[in-house]
Amino acid sequence: MTRQTSGRAALRWAVSSAGPAVVLLDQTALPHAEVELACADVPALVAAIQRLVVRGAPLLGIAGAYGVALAAARGDDVVAAAGLLAAARPTAVNLASGVEIALDAWRSNGGDPAAPLAAARALEAADAAASAAMAEHGRDLVVGLVPGKARILTHCNTGALVSGGTGTALAVVLALHTADRLDRLWVDETRPLLQGARLTAWEAGRAGVPHAVLADGAAGSLFARGRVDAVLVGADRIAADGSVANKVGTYPLAVLARHHGVPFVVVAPTSTIDPATADGDAIVVEERDGAEVTSYAGAAVAPADTPAYNPAFDVTPPDLVTALVTEVGVIRPLSSESVRSVLPRTARSGATMDS
Amino acid sequence: MTRQTSGRAALRWAVSSAGPAVVLLDQTALPHAEVELACADVPALVAAIQRLVVRGAPLLGIAGAYGVALAAARGDDVVAAAGLLAAARPTAVNLASGVEIALDAWRSNGGDPAAPLAAARALEAADAAASAAMAEHGRDLVVGLVPGKARILTHCNTGALVSGGTGTALAVVLALHTADRLDRLWVDETRPLLQGARLTAWEAGRAGVPHAVLADGAAGSLFARGRVDAVLVGADRIAADGSVANKVGTYPLAVLARHHGVPFVVVAPTSTIDPATADGDAIVVEERDGAEVTSYAGAAVAPADTPAYNPAFDVTPPDLVTALVTEVGVIRPLSSESVRSVLPRTARSGATMDS
Repeated sequence: MTRQTSGRAALRWAVSSAGPAVVLLDQTALPHAEVELACADVPALVAAIQRLVVRGAPLLGIAGAYGVALAAARGDDVVAAAGLLAAARPTAVNLASGVEIALDAWRSNGGDPAAPLAAARALEAADAAASAAMAEHGRDLVVGLVPGKARILTHCNTGALVSGGTGTALAVVLALHTADRLDRLWVDETRPLLQGARLTAWEAGRAGVPHAVLADGAAGSLFARGRVDAVLVGADRIAADGSVANKVGTYPLAVLARHHGVPFVVVAPTSTIDPATADGDAIVVEERDGAEVTSYAGAAVAPADTPAYNPAFDVTPPDLVTALVTEVGVIRPLSSESVRSVLPRTARSGATMDS
Repeated sequence: MTRQTSGRAALRWAVSSAGPAVVLLDQTALPHAEVELACADVPALVAAIQRLVVRGAPLLGIAGAYGVALAAARGDDVVAAAGLLAAARPTAVNLASGVEIALDAWRSNGGDPAAPLAAARALEAADAAASAAMAEHGRDLVVGLVPGKARILTHCNTGALVSGGTGTALAVVLALHTADRLDRLWVDETRPLLQGARLTAWEAGRAGVPHAVLADGAAGSLFARGRVDAVLVGADRIAADGSVANKVGTYPLAVLARHHGVPFVVVAPTSTIDPATADGDAIVVEERDGAEVTSYAGAAVAPADTPAYNPAFDVTPPDLVTALVTEVGVIRPLSSESVRSVLPRTARSGATMDS
């Protein structure tokens, strides 16, 4: 099963006369062009992950699993390939756990290359089911929190482009829209890579969701004017204490939401929870190339050689999170205890592999 | 007197065989090109103001005064020209008051075209003196608030490009640097028009100030990691109750600063205070073209026809402001009473002209 976004899937497994490949919809080219990139080996896939051709916590897990399947199908060194894949981006726990799931399948089936492929397909199907469950739980939560039609603020991109299904936070937004309980979606443009302006606006437009894009700094005036009823965001990693790593710019929204008494809701599958990461301080935050900030689309903005600070993520402490929506239900309040309660029994003792 | 930024002044009065002109350093072309634009009549100057060729609260006042002088020198309808200039941008009170000062000089000198020009030159000189005084007061304030070398976060551009002198918030930063009390300047890129990445980084680099540019949303993680000792920003208009209108993205910094117990300091001349604007709700916030958000440095980012929310400013209530640094001293705390105490006696009854 591959999920369709617009005729083209964000990720699909393809076998041609040239051999197997993981084919990605190049998200760096959206919304202006729909270009597919076929990764015929793991180094190509790792480079695509690092360049954000493919991105988003759940989809990274699926990409990691297909990457292991690709190495196995090619007869490459599967363990080495798994190591490269898991380390491609340090913050998203799903990537490492998707790799681990496919690697386990390969190992426990005596190196049968069909086993990691089946595991990747199962992971993709499970993620689609998780999306549907999160959409339902999240919709019911927001309907309970906000009377009438909700004005939702979101950050980054959390829809079908990041998941095996309809996504995380954006899946909830779509469910609210379907239930006629959405007034408007406010879309943070999400600097530096503009996933909001490029991808969320594209997905919202295609779904007919009323929306408007804003500079990230303009969110403050929306709160001040009472024009936000709830914030819905995804997560890249959730620590054992409930600290949430997500796209940089998320934490300021959590602080603004608290200051204005607006619910701040995180939507993420339980696979995003990493019991091996104790708390927010233990989350490794990827620092990316400063040129992402000082230039755009190849054009320099700042003077040459201007130093930049460019963390990809920030960390929101659990006490600023009104609720965490997962596929198994809503966790509220967020704490070590409540996080532990939704983990599969096998995971509670800590993951064996850290990214 | 015209202030030099780099060989070229941000604004200068020039008389050639073609007649008089207000010559502007085109700030939209910085930092990659230093291009001057000669405005030979008021409509050209109004267009330049609206396009942000010239910008920044104090400099807009000076530009407005020179604009009246230009109309008078050309023998145009001075009152009509003053009306066009004052309305060119609605939020910056200095623009309207600079226009008013030059118009008053023209009227009270029987229409002598030399009078508004002398008034504009006096306004420019007074602004340079105000910059120097603010730099000193602000430096002493920060030295008192922050032990050792300070890590300062700023937003937008508040240096020599916006003033008849060294500026407002950036003038304080330069004074701290000169006093060896600056560790580093964090520069918000300041979307949508990137005045921080383009202009503040340019000015900081030329002055040898250690600095780094960041996406506006990344400021949150600097606060969370304890890497900001104080926030210094300018202001476009300060209402009678102390509410501060400044570049959009300022208010979230004030909320973050409060959440983290970090001083939030506004640096602005008393000419920025508008006693005719009662409070924050009365401040007219300019909404600009959505294309500023849906494109980046001229390149389309969002899908065509994506709606945008693009307020140029936001409003920070006085209780979030640790101190206001003016040319006549530091106001702390900020309140109706303390604001009134620094106004010239003639202004306390309310300005006669609102923008």
